Amino acid sequence: MYDRDQLKEIVDKALVSYSYYSGSDKLFEPVKYAVSVGGKRLRPILTLMACNLFTDKINEAVMPAAGIEIFHNFSLVHDDIMDNASIRRNFPTVHSKYGINQAILSGDVMAFLANECFLQLPQEKVVKVVRLFNNTAIEVCQGQQMDMDFEKKDIVPEEDYIRMIRKKTAVLIAAALEIGAIIGGAEDKDSQTLYDFGINLGLAFQIQDDILDIWSDEKVFGKSQGGDIIANKKTLPIIKAFELASGNNLRLLKELYSQKNSVEEREKVETVTAILNELWIKEVTTILADSYIDNALKALKSVAVEERKKEKLLNITESLVNRNR
Amino acid sequence: MYDRDQLKEIVDKALVSYSYYSGSDKLFEPVKYAVSVGGKRLRPILTLMACNLFTDKINEAVMPAAGIEIFHNFSLVHDDIMDNASIRRNFPTVHSKYGINQAILSGDVMAFLANECFLQLPQEKVVKVVRLFNNTAIEVCQGQQMDMDFEKKDIVPEEDYIRMIRKKTAVLIAAALEIGAIIGGAEDKDSQTLYDFGINLGLAFQIQDDILDIWSDEKVFGKSQGGDIIANKKTLPIIKAFELASGNNLRLLKELYSQKNSVEEREKVETVTAILNELWIKEVTTILADSYIDNALKALKSVAVEERKKEKLLNITESLVNRNR
Repeated sequence: MYDRDQLKEIVDKALVSYSYYSGSDKLFEPVKYAVSVGGKRLRPILTLMACNLFTDKINEAVMPAAGIEIFHNFSLVHDDIMDNASIRRNFPTVHSKYGINQAILSGDVMAFLANECFLQLPQEKVVKVVRLFNNTAIEVCQGQQMDMDFEKKDIVPEEDYIRMIRKKTAVLIAAALEIGAIIGGAEDKDSQTLYDFGINLGLAFQIQDDILDIWSDEKVFGKSQGGDIIANKKTLPIIKAFELASGNNLRLLKELYSQKNSVEEREKVETVTAILNELWIKEVTTILADSYIDNALKALKSVAVEERKKEKLLNITESLVNRNR
Repeated sequence: MYDRDQLKEIVDKALVSYSYYSGSDKLFEPVKYAVSVGGKRLRPILTLMACNLFTDKINEAVMPAAGIEIFHNFSLVHDDIMDNASIRRNFPTVHSKYGINQAILSGDVMAFLANECFLQLPQEKVVKVVRLFNNTAIEVCQGQQMDMDFEKKDIVPEEDYIRMIRKKTAVLIAAALEIGAIIGGAEDKDSQTLYDFGINLGLAFQIQDDILDIWSDEKVFGKSQGGDIIANKKTLPIIKAFELASGNNLRLLKELYSQKNSVEEREKVETVTAILNELWIKEVTTILADSYIDNALKALKSVAVEERKKEKLLNITESLVNRNR
């Protein structure tokens, strides 16, 4: 079994050996930049781990794994334009470095580069994988649409929020796993169970991310604390707070979330965090994240391979959940 | 043999029967708008005609043809953002109607919707067609990159311009034809010859378009006359003029193309057109377009099917060339 570091290295190598990397084409400069600026390579590593459950020969899954990472970065490049974000992973975003038009176009080409990564697969697997990939990509766009729509709403019901992060985050993690399993030769039942595992893992991962945005140490997390609060984002902790707050707290929350920039940023973060703490929101939200982790673990348990082979996926699941505990 | 109008109807039907069309998803509104606002459906019609050369049963090629049209519209949606264009085919462009962020995202989803259109094909054809499609899409992005780069250059050599329109316009027309031929069951030699036919047709088509922008009747062409001149675009007639002009004319051209907005638009168009007329640029450029048409016709002649079956493709070739004669 390959471990996480080995798989990351394999993915990194595949990404820089891909043809576009060798050209001097101006179009591909921002692609190289987007793909090379950090990232944990979580999704492609999951593809390779899922493949590795069913076969020792993971070679066939390497380019598809790279394709999933390229797609993931494609969505970040375009989302950062839409979100007007200037920094990602401590580096300037593609559009702040190269301009919006260049970021649109170089992002575009990544969608097609990603699709090409699946075409070396044996014929009987290509259609299945390419269909799952493009279906997933469409869902990710739907998720981004919901996220943008939520910005204009005062109140977002919890179930709508879960539907949004399912599409925006979880389906790609799920598809990364299912694609790995298909390539590894899994039975349909097992590859679909790994998809379920991925959905639950992805939901927990995103909720955990929302929690970390509020209650984490800046240096460890690599983003400035409370960024979501400053941006008025209705993440799960905030949705929960609106649900549970009453009296003064509710009035204060409404006030802080209705006006932009009227309160100094630091003060806003501190006040909101204090209310959240009073309402035990971190604990309430963590319980929900944990319930998705439980579902994920149940799904993983039911995959028909020896338990010892699942160790790497178990480790990665635990490491995601315990980032802040 | 199906004629052009029948094929257009088939394509239009396929486009509105595609799944995304039935949803109420906000993401797909601009997609429907982009796809439904006019258009001659040239590329998908070529796909079906190429298929029809080799088989009477063109059914299999219908969704792939729709995919090519969706991709074409995807590139228009994003190019219009980059070119800051507010009108296309006499309607507001997607981003002027729905906003830039929405146009980026709805454009994105079209890239994946297009890819899905090829997945119903028999397995042995899928990989070939999907590879050709994505390779072509990458080239179209490269062509748009070159076009954007040219805007910053004072002088564009003719051969660079031809390389640009080859990628930006011709390869998609060529791929549309080759994909149709592959689906129709053509031998490799014939499908590749149809690709060559398409490259030459596409080059002639674009040069003809450049000519029409300067020397056409506004009502017929549907764009305002001299738009390229106003936008300082280095199209082939302008490149040729810079090559052939001397003395006063050259000085005047340089002046008009170095300063934006200093001369009144109408006056600029009239002065440039007068210089071009003096230098016989329309005739010089038409000769070049004709030479590509000759190459296209030679390629079509060498495709190993009965001549009478090629009639529709011959007609469409002639109709493209004779738009302004």
